[in-house]
Amino acid sequence: MGERGFATSEFEARLARAQAMMAAHDLDALFLTTEPEVRYFTGYLTRFWASPTRPWFLIVPARGKPIAVIPGIGAALMAQTWVEDIRTWSAPDLQDDGVSLLAETLREVVPRAGRIGLPDGHETHLRMPLADLERVRSALEGRRIVGDAGIIRALRMVKSPAEIMKIETACAIAARAFARVAEFAREGAALDRVFRQFQMTCLGEGADWVPYLAGGAEQGGYTDVISPAREIPLVSGDVLMLDTGLVWDGYFCDYDRNWSVGVPAPVVATGFAQLVEASDAAFGIARPGATAADLFHAMQEVLARNGETTDAGRLGHGLGMSLTEWPSLIPSDHTVLEVGMVLTLEPGIALGDRILVHEEDIVITESGARYLSPHLGPELAVI
Amino acid sequence: MGERGFATSEFEARLARAQAMMAAHDLDALFLTTEPEVRYFTGYLTRFWASPTRPWFLIVPARGKPIAVIPGIGAALMAQTWVEDIRTWSAPDLQDDGVSLLAETLREVVPRAGRIGLPDGHETHLRMPLADLERVRSALEGRRIVGDAGIIRALRMVKSPAEIMKIETACAIAARAFARVAEFAREGAALDRVFRQFQMTCLGEGADWVPYLAGGAEQGGYTDVISPAREIPLVSGDVLMLDTGLVWDGYFCDYDRNWSVGVPAPVVATGFAQLVEASDAAFGIARPGATAADLFHAMQEVLARNGETTDAGRLGHGLGMSLTEWPSLIPSDHTVLEVGMVLTLEPGIALGDRILVHEEDIVITESGARYLSPHLGPELAVI
Repeated sequence: MGERGFATSEFEARLARAQAMMAAHDLDALFLTTEPEVRYFTGYLTRFWASPTRPWFLIVPARGKPIAVIPGIGAALMAQTWVEDIRTWSAPDLQDDGVSLLAETLREVVPRAGRIGLPDGHETHLRMPLADLERVRSALEGRRIVGDAGIIRALRMVKSPAEIMKIETACAIAARAFARVAEFAREGAALDRVFRQFQMTCLGEGADWVPYLAGGAEQGGYTDVISPAREIPLVSGDVLMLDTGLVWDGYFCDYDRNWSVGVPAPVVATGFAQLVEASDAAFGIARPGATAADLFHAMQEVLARNGETTDAGRLGHGLGMSLTEWPSLIPSDHTVLEVGMVLTLEPGIALGDRILVHEEDIVITESGARYLSPHLGPELAVI
Repeated sequence: MGERGFATSEFEARLARAQAMMAAHDLDALFLTTEPEVRYFTGYLTRFWASPTRPWFLIVPARGKPIAVIPGIGAALMAQTWVEDIRTWSAPDLQDDGVSLLAETLREVVPRAGRIGLPDGHETHLRMPLADLERVRSALEGRRIVGDAGIIRALRMVKSPAEIMKIETACAIAARAFARVAEFAREGAALDRVFRQFQMTCLGEGADWVPYLAGGAEQGGYTDVISPAREIPLVSGDVLMLDTGLVWDGYFCDYDRNWSVGVPAPVVATGFAQLVEASDAAFGIARPGATAADLFHAMQEVLARNGETTDAGRLGHGLGMSLTEWPSLIPSDHTVLEVGMVLTLEPGIALGDRILVHEEDIVITESGARYLSPHLGPELAVI
């Protein structure tokens, strides 16, 4: 495992890139409200975001360091980051839950008639009450809240070496946990117990927490890949799939593994091999200059030979501080791959009314792609 | 443990209450985007919300059952709920990520010049891109999106017996896990290992997942209650605190436990006893007709005797489908307690530059309050 946290130089570099892009887009500040956005510029890492009660704000000015406008409960932890200007209010405040303090801060750092960038595009949301956003708007005295011109997306999509190391650590923890699944996932074991045991194994192998686990186990595949586990025992002929997003030091892995309970039916064995062939094909062309759509088509070409597609809507995606991030491996996403992008390759096929999905995590390097998850061969594991 | 899921009658009752309140507030539909809001009316339970990529929409019309407007990847699971009208698109779609389908559905169920309620108040947020909300607004042909008049808050704040049973089950699982902490939290054990082991123990005792764990361990108290665990061994004189929000069947518990490593200093022992006295005082007056503010003052009176307050901003809160919900135990929250409300009592005090926090979960019944967490006495546990 690597070191926790980041050197201050990492945050300085992120800030410098952000401010250069802000200048290019004529933005006088970024206004951020979600966990990964705040953490990206501060390193502020806490599970307290699970509580939806309190809003948290971070202002990235055109010059100078980020300013945190946060509930008092977070002050001690924020003071441990590189952020120096920390402004707090006693939240929750039913009359004024940070609105005045936020508006005052924006008026201070943004010139009159200035533009404040708020992420508003695909895969973003606003983590504060909508009515309070309107109150902030009306207190800005001429300053305008506009979109962030995709700056946050562009920044977060390319990972630093330190970020990649954290994702790789998460992948390695999951690999050790996946390697132990056969210890508890046997014929007769109930799927909900397998889910519990797998999460315990992830923690035992070093995960800080396990925010995501999905999967399934049915005859010859599974019905979907997002359902919680049912209290139904594994039986011969099932294909068990576990898909985990565990976290180490705030960064996710996101990949799955499949097991046949007993010898797989030929159609299942062939289908799985086809999935691996598809992800291998995408891996083979994944390099700087290729596009997200190229990777989609490389996989789709293999999958279309026989077999139908699933309802997943894409064949992979970015990952990092969130379980899923930009880009999407779909025909319309023409994002050009760059060194440092981390992606999942996630081909799926339908076998009758069941599906099979396979997933690996990769990083784009100068010479091509490198696996962060242990690359699987075409033979489906048997338990 | 009780039964998983809910009878259809539970959703029918929730819908009927919602539609009665909508009629009273002249709302022709509710428009919902977040996990607990969608689940409240559908029972749709998945951890897939951890992926921020895709928006999900639920429309509650003035008459008739909810309509799900969701990504295709969720169709199979949504079809297992009582919802019949499920409209899907292939997400992510970079050009039109559900916007047209959503606007079309709203135009269909809401009359021209009708009003669509979107939660916009305290403790709410919009889980979709802001730019897409504007696109929806401009496609509504006269229909207006307004606030939800607090309907969701009012509905979710009062729990049904089936919901209370699930919260109680989560509390009982945490109680069994807390009872085993002394097995692994000893002098010399690193706090991050204690955190991992505790999460494993929660899972082993029956938690479906452990979305929240915070805590601390420092000499004579802790610095805050939201930090991740450090790799620092427990030493004599530390007070270890673990605060968990684990989930069973989609419902949270949220309470903490404290342990002194070795015999506690007198000021720590006294401080802890004072916290228990404070929560006991709130418990004593917690009944239908009392207010959230009354509970705050009952605790504050005990805490103010000696000792300073913390930065937490409140002394307890609601819980249920989320780790924290309305109301807040603060002087300005005059929410009148009703049978079925589930609350945490969470008094805290400062001891120099350290704090101590104690937390219990209770439910309001006709005759008073009942503990859902095992009520602690004034003596601080020692490990």
